[in-house]
Amino acid sequence: MEHHQTKSSSAPLRPIRCIIKLGGAAITCKNDFETINEENLNIVSSQIREAMVSKSVFSKVIGMDWSKRPGMSQTPTVDISDQDVIESHNFIVVHGAGSFGHFQASKSGVHKGGLSRTLVKSGFVATRISVTSLNLDIVRALAREGIPATGMSPFSCGWLTCRRNIAAADVSMVARAIDSGFIPVLHGDAVLDTAQECTILSGDLIISHLAAKLRPDFVVFLTDVYGVYDRPPTEPNATLLREIAVHEDGSWSVIKPILQGSNKVEMTAAAHDTTGGMETKIAEAAVIAKLGIDVYIVKAATEHSLKALSGSLKDEIPEDWLGTVIRLAR
Amino acid sequence: MEHHQTKSSSAPLRPIRCIIKLGGAAITCKNDFETINEENLNIVSSQIREAMVSKSVFSKVIGMDWSKRPGMSQTPTVDISDQDVIESHNFIVVHGAGSFGHFQASKSGVHKGGLSRTLVKSGFVATRISVTSLNLDIVRALAREGIPATGMSPFSCGWLTCRRNIAAADVSMVARAIDSGFIPVLHGDAVLDTAQECTILSGDLIISHLAAKLRPDFVVFLTDVYGVYDRPPTEPNATLLREIAVHEDGSWSVIKPILQGSNKVEMTAAAHDTTGGMETKIAEAAVIAKLGIDVYIVKAATEHSLKALSGSLKDEIPEDWLGTVIRLAR
Repeated sequence: MEHHQTKSSSAPLRPIRCIIKLGGAAITCKNDFETINEENLNIVSSQIREAMVSKSVFSKVIGMDWSKRPGMSQTPTVDISDQDVIESHNFIVVHGAGSFGHFQASKSGVHKGGLSRTLVKSGFVATRISVTSLNLDIVRALAREGIPATGMSPFSCGWLTCRRNIAAADVSMVARAIDSGFIPVLHGDAVLDTAQECTILSGDLIISHLAAKLRPDFVVFLTDVYGVYDRPPTEPNATLLREIAVHEDGSWSVIKPILQGSNKVEMTAAAHDTTGGMETKIAEAAVIAKLGIDVYIVKAATEHSLKALSGSLKDEIPEDWLGTVIRLAR
Repeated sequence: MEHHQTKSSSAPLRPIRCIIKLGGAAITCKNDFETINEENLNIVSSQIREAMVSKSVFSKVIGMDWSKRPGMSQTPTVDISDQDVIESHNFIVVHGAGSFGHFQASKSGVHKGGLSRTLVKSGFVATRISVTSLNLDIVRALAREGIPATGMSPFSCGWLTCRRNIAAADVSMVARAIDSGFIPVLHGDAVLDTAQECTILSGDLIISHLAAKLRPDFVVFLTDVYGVYDRPPTEPNATLLREIAVHEDGSWSVIKPILQGSNKVEMTAAAHDTTGGMETKIAEAAVIAKLGIDVYIVKAATEHSLKALSGSLKDEIPEDWLGTVIRLAR
């Protein structure tokens, strides 16, 4: 991530509690083309609401999606007593693509660039249609839970890459939205690239960048497994890594559990591939943890994700909490 | 429109042929909540394609919407021979809201500001959901016609108002999208306002601003009537104003037809109201025409709109063309 070009006025006045990654695998049905995992998304939305608003003022949910839904033809009934807005913690949501966008992007090779080719250009347009349609559905699910969500596409926000690394990302509008009390909802997107014309900007890269610029208290990755394992979680004897410490030099070691022989996970190329890049995932989380920001990787829509989102893990991690904490070595 | 704060690098390298306003009344069903006028939208999309690509290279339509449509469950078949992209004219599309957004905005009074009130904040979120969902549908309709459309929400692009006038509008991303060969699709949106916290930014205000910054050859307003009339078009004897000349001092006069008694349309307050702001419409178009940019106001999805979009009216306006031309007095 060289060449950051962000405005000096970009930091929000209000501190950011948490950046949440909604993993594509957690909120979509992986094997069904462009299908949302409604159940998970609804639970996740409800958990985010619970984590945002302090329990003492937990009141009636004020639905903020007043648009037509399937089977509905009339304008909805909106019955909101015009009280003042309840103060709440500031969150940013970033989501992946899952079964949205993937087909369009891989079919056309958008990540490899080359907008002068019809296939790439069409694929760029098709990918953006798919991921922005997912973004709209997620914003609507959050809004139905009374979360003041506003979709913000990295492409429109002017995020640019250079050789697939972030070259420019003006976070001032994200900061402004937060200062106005909204929850920005960004997403992995097709973007312009100054070296290869276009590419795919991943949700994970967006989070690293936002974390560095906006310094949230903590970051939560919601996935479809309980956390990071020492081998593919479907394998017998796969061990959930409970706590990983990141050192000043960027290296990391498993603190908990104590692994046999060594506290470093030995990763073979095969293990790397089949886990969908476990090492990459840890490396990306380590970049954030190195800033002093705790990262929790946890299964979405569980009691464990609720605990992570609530921020209570900062003080103490209960013995029965399932997930992976990645943080700066103390 | 005071306080423009746009980057100096904002002008695109490629000249812009046309900015098109898709009027809300032309592409949605006015009286059906959040319902698109599919027939009009499809014809308009096809006409825009025809106007973009010169006739000699008019070839197979390359569909760029590869997402699920109602009744479809599998991934679509994408069969694109990977030829080079055909050069085409640069267009920008801006659309209104019609039966989208209006209910949400008026119910909550977003235009009057005041985000500390629950009703306004909810309405802001609900309005954005509604207008971005319309934006997505329009982008998809254009993409199906092979137009490389990319949605760009003014809110995400960082457009801000101050007392409902544009205070900041970074058009550099719009320019970049054009230089990369895309057709930006903007829309009337709920935006932040530096004086009153929030408001509604109209599509018409967006067009005036883009026209001043990006200097297109001409601007086309697609509406649901044949143009601007001297009185509500439903009234008997309503006369279509064919040509309006704008003078250096900003005043304007009807050149064609020669109106009885005077070539100035006398507008009563009542006439103003019932035409849905005819005088306002002319005044806004006059601001653009004063820049030397011809404005055509024409009924969408007709042979007349196709003529306007093609740019052929710049040289000569045929006798049988129905619409209103507003241009600088010669």
